[in-house]
Amino acid sequence: MPELRRDPVSGRWVIIATERGKRPSDYPSPPPRKMDSKFCPFCPGNEAATPPEVWSLRAPGTGPNEPGWTVRAIPNKYPALRIEGELNREGVGIYDKMNGIGAHEVVIETPHHHENLVDLSTSRIADVMAVCQERVNDLIKDDRFRYVMLFKNQGESAGASLEHSHTQLIATPVVPKRVLEEMEGAKRYYADKERCIFCDILRQERSDGERIVDQSESFIAYAPFASRFPFEVWIVPRPHQPVFRSMGEAHRLEFAEILRRTLLRIKFTLNNPDYNYMFHSAPFGHETTSEYHWHLEIIPKLTRVAGFEWGTGFYINPTSPEEAAECLRNARLDEGTTETPVPAGAAEGIH
Amino acid sequence: MPELRRDPVSGRWVIIATERGKRPSDYPSPPPRKMDSKFCPFCPGNEAATPPEVWSLRAPGTGPNEPGWTVRAIPNKYPALRIEGELNREGVGIYDKMNGIGAHEVVIETPHHHENLVDLSTSRIADVMAVCQERVNDLIKDDRFRYVMLFKNQGESAGASLEHSHTQLIATPVVPKRVLEEMEGAKRYYADKERCIFCDILRQERSDGERIVDQSESFIAYAPFASRFPFEVWIVPRPHQPVFRSMGEAHRLEFAEILRRTLLRIKFTLNNPDYNYMFHSAPFGHETTSEYHWHLEIIPKLTRVAGFEWGTGFYINPTSPEEAAECLRNARLDEGTTETPVPAGAAEGIH
Repeated sequence: MPELRRDPVSGRWVIIATERGKRPSDYPSPPPRKMDSKFCPFCPGNEAATPPEVWSLRAPGTGPNEPGWTVRAIPNKYPALRIEGELNREGVGIYDKMNGIGAHEVVIETPHHHENLVDLSTSRIADVMAVCQERVNDLIKDDRFRYVMLFKNQGESAGASLEHSHTQLIATPVVPKRVLEEMEGAKRYYADKERCIFCDILRQERSDGERIVDQSESFIAYAPFASRFPFEVWIVPRPHQPVFRSMGEAHRLEFAEILRRTLLRIKFTLNNPDYNYMFHSAPFGHETTSEYHWHLEIIPKLTRVAGFEWGTGFYINPTSPEEAAECLRNARLDEGTTETPVPAGAAEGIH
Repeated sequence: MPELRRDPVSGRWVIIATERGKRPSDYPSPPPRKMDSKFCPFCPGNEAATPPEVWSLRAPGTGPNEPGWTVRAIPNKYPALRIEGELNREGVGIYDKMNGIGAHEVVIETPHHHENLVDLSTSRIADVMAVCQERVNDLIKDDRFRYVMLFKNQGESAGASLEHSHTQLIATPVVPKRVLEEMEGAKRYYADKERCIFCDILRQERSDGERIVDQSESFIAYAPFASRFPFEVWIVPRPHQPVFRSMGEAHRLEFAEILRRTLLRIKFTLNNPDYNYMFHSAPFGHETTSEYHWHLEIIPKLTRVAGFEWGTGFYINPTSPEEAAECLRNARLDEGTTETPVPAGAAEGIH
């Protein structure tokens, strides 16, 4: 059973997940450069190689754990946190710990092994997002959980261990430190001004203009003023919305479109880099807060985090966000996508 | 001129260092796997390729910026922060910024290109540490600075851009967020108990025993209870000492010995992995605090930080610290070092 542990000085929680790696010899040195793509458990036909699916969008007439799906959500076979059991909080002398209760799921974004999220049409990206929302909305019913982090590791240098394109969800029994910090910062601002800090940031970004990457009626993609990483881009809804999971269909399609365009800009500008994205959304119980505003953070993997960053939490970013935004804004998007046709009607049936 | 910028939500500061990288095409994709070792600016004979040295340990009769040194401190040729100018703090609408005043120096640990810190004798490691202390003690005289982070990136995957073994110092005009958080956590504990939290941790670690990696009369090396990374090791002085830079000669030799042994344990246990180390020491003005206790954090590069960690500040560590400590404790250290002889008398003269 994995464990959650808290650093008594910084308050930082970590997961001690002993089932995932273990012995020194399990750590290749240097790490392998190519992911094994001989057998892919995420490809259609190999459904039995994964835990049974918890949700899918699939063609009418096909059943669970059969081919015919376009988006498929499954529990992670090697979860960082386990769904079974009761949550126990306990002290060990000066230290605090909890057992590692949580959930760890994977949303397989496409049936095609070599297709990435950026290659999908807007409506298929919207389908992926709909499945992500569905899973978060299901997991919040479990009152042992305080937060669900929805994130993507695209490519090996971004931490992906399987090549087939997927997004992950991890539900945690505590609100993570970084989310708490953001909430606290946003609360302090609101207490002072009675305005959402993200709404104010969007107003300033639209007025300054120089960090804007893309925008649509309800969304802005911009390079944040204090970008930690080169070409970091955040996508934020213009209307005040605390949580991602409540977004309706019209907004979802619009979000899918600006996400697709932003990923294409990054792909063309930076020669298809690996990247991570992370959804930041208000914790459970804060669905209607005026203080917090959901957003997506995208960080291309271009630099390495080194000792200075680890020691200080201070990041060295070699490209200004203004310059990054200019490059991304000017990217030509007319090179087209490389989408593979989907089975007819596949997106219609919901299992 | 680089800039410091603060994220208005989390309070996190970043350095926007536009002189260091810049255009999309400056980011190789994928990153180069081998560091260029054709011309090394850190090798003896190439002293003119670096900015003039600010300190060195060298053989009697040799002059600054000539061969004959064993440890050499120089300003970084491509600094993240600049030493020249006055510190200006300014608001930009909702944002805060400062100009990028600071210092960025390199301590070259050995004249031999292929020798690493772990290969040096205890007394030579102590010399490296003495030069680091010397540089910190010099930089604190500059009242624009609030902190000096002393760290090492060993190997390319740990962020090193030059192969020749070196440690770095970055002086910052603000106390970094992660240091503040540690200070605040330690202060809260002290306010409650009137005891240093690190002293209490050491007491518990010595009593538990299972996370101890090595110890000597005045130092303990252990795998922290809430290790973020597999085989993370901290070295902490047993007597209460707030700052690294004040350590005297006897303690320095003892510290060098436990550092050497710990690095050897990591090298033999994990097949010579890349690693980072970071010194955590009380900020300027807190040299005699009862609340904070300096220590060295060593993190071997074995896993990749991915979307979940970036989004939450929550780390997934696949090896328990108890198991890591056991492996490291049991490492055989009798395989000997591969030290290259130093020029006779080289360590005696101080320039």
